Amino acid sequence: MLDSPHSASLETLLLHHEIETFNTRYAAALDAQTLSDWVEMFTEDAFYVVLSRENAERNYPVGLIYCEGRAMIRDRAFALDKTAMFAPRYLRHLITNLSVTGTDADGVIHATANYLVTQVLLDRPDATLHQVGVYEDQFRRTAEGLKLKSRRCIYDNLLVDNALCIPV
Amino acid sequence: MLDSPHSASLETLLLHHEIETFNTRYAAALDAQTLSDWVEMFTEDAFYVVLSRENAERNYPVGLIYCEGRAMIRDRAFALDKTAMFAPRYLRHLITNLSVTGTDADGVIHATANYLVTQVLLDRPDATLHQVGVYEDQFRRTAEGLKLKSRRCIYDNLLVDNALCIPV
Amino acid sequence: MLDSPHSASLETLLLHHEIETFNTRYAAALDAQTLSDWVEMFTEDAFYVVLSRENAERNYPVGLIYCEGRAMIRDRAFALDKTAMFAPRYLRHLITNLSVTGTDADGVIHATANYLVTQVLLDRPDATLHQVGVYEDQFRRTAEGLKLKSRRCIYDNLLVDNALCIPV
Repeated sequence: MLDSPHSASLETLLLHHEIETFNTRYAAALDAQTLSDWVEMFTEDAFYVVLSRENAERNYPVGLIYCEGRAMIRDRAFALDKTAMFAPRYLRHLITNLSVTGTDADGVIHATANYLVTQVLLDRPDATLHQVGVYEDQFRRTAEGLKLKSRRCIYDNLLVDNALCIPV
Repeated sequence: MLDSPHSASLETLLLHHEIETFNTRYAAALDAQTLSDWVEMFTEDAFYVVLSRENAERNYPVGLIYCEGRAMIRDRAFALDKTAMFAPRYLRHLITNLSVTGTDADGVIHATANYLVTQVLLDRPDATLHQVGVYEDQFRRTAEGLKLKSRRCIYDNLLVDNALCIPV
Repeated sequence: MLDSPHSASLETLLLHHEIETFNTRYAAALDAQTLSDWVEMFTEDAFYVVLSRENAERNYPVGLIYCEGRAMIRDRAFALDKTAMFAPRYLRHLITNLSVTGTDADGVIHATANYLVTQVLLDRPDATLHQVGVYEDQFRRTAEGLKLKSRRCIYDNLLVDNALCIPV
């Protein structure tokens, strides 16, 4: 252990960095469309939902995507893998403003982060803002490292021309 | 104290993290429109200004927003609270590229960071770039933690359809 | 040395921070158009290329910009300095999702980061997404600090109205 006045802060820094690293890997998996890697970042009982800020603020659970458990998350990823052939696109996640808000009695770590996802359709030259929002997260430590027990992606907007419900 | 070659760097890291955390809270207050929290992030004598990069580079002090002291900042926030009813919107701040540039003899910490603010008007489905720029900051330590003694928000652009002078 | 279970992680943190700081300085040089500073961030034998994600994924080396060695990078910067007069613009880099992926036997540090560059043309009021992509980097330690031995800027998109090949 560190016998310094900064010990507590160092712990905080290391945890912050660990979650930042997780989010970077998460974004890379989605940007590279290696969705089987993406699925493995959730716990078996994970909750994954993508819903509008409007619904989130009114406590309406209805979302674009609603998955209870990794099996549903996997189904969603594979469905995308098939249909994505029809509309190839490039995505790019920028994740910022990470806040690790606390760890509860069960060891679950709570955090939030802002995200911005750009999209390029392969027949158009410009990037557009696909989705902007906030991740509301719960992480759990497992034998394989940190995993998401819950991620709620609450988006401010959604482009109308986006037919697919792409994970973010 | 840490007896290691990294002590100095660790101090640097901790300060960097502290300011990053401040900026994340700052952004969250504006994004959630909890403007009374936002006001409290400034010192009593704080300087807060939002001005164009063009004017900043020419040393013209004229800005969209110009506040000397927290009382003026509070007035601005309350004015917004009232008028915002007429044009509801969602904002989202992404703050990146933090640079802590130094601490002067009076203990004032100097830093900069880039920001990008997206805006969603509630009658339109897409997010647009509301403002992109740089924060030029001075922080002071107080009994209540870090506060902004000065924040100059220097924006590259401003959307013309933006009637309100929203704090960023 | 730190005799703590966190030593390894602290090393990781410090290296992460060092590269993040480098990227922040890099972005600041381009945003302020102090291109002579930008040039000095590369090693003498540096490789600098800007190419499309499409070409990168197919292993086509063809890019918008292709420089072998700092002399070519300097030529590119000076060419820009002259032609930029005809189309003044503001750029702003947001660099996120830094991942330090490893250090090889020669001490070369490998890293990636996502970038988003906004552009404001001075006769138009709005900011647009100029370029979104990923930096694939190799850093080398020199007597003057970290330098880029190789930076591949792989962009998802490019606005068609962009006549100049601006470094990113």
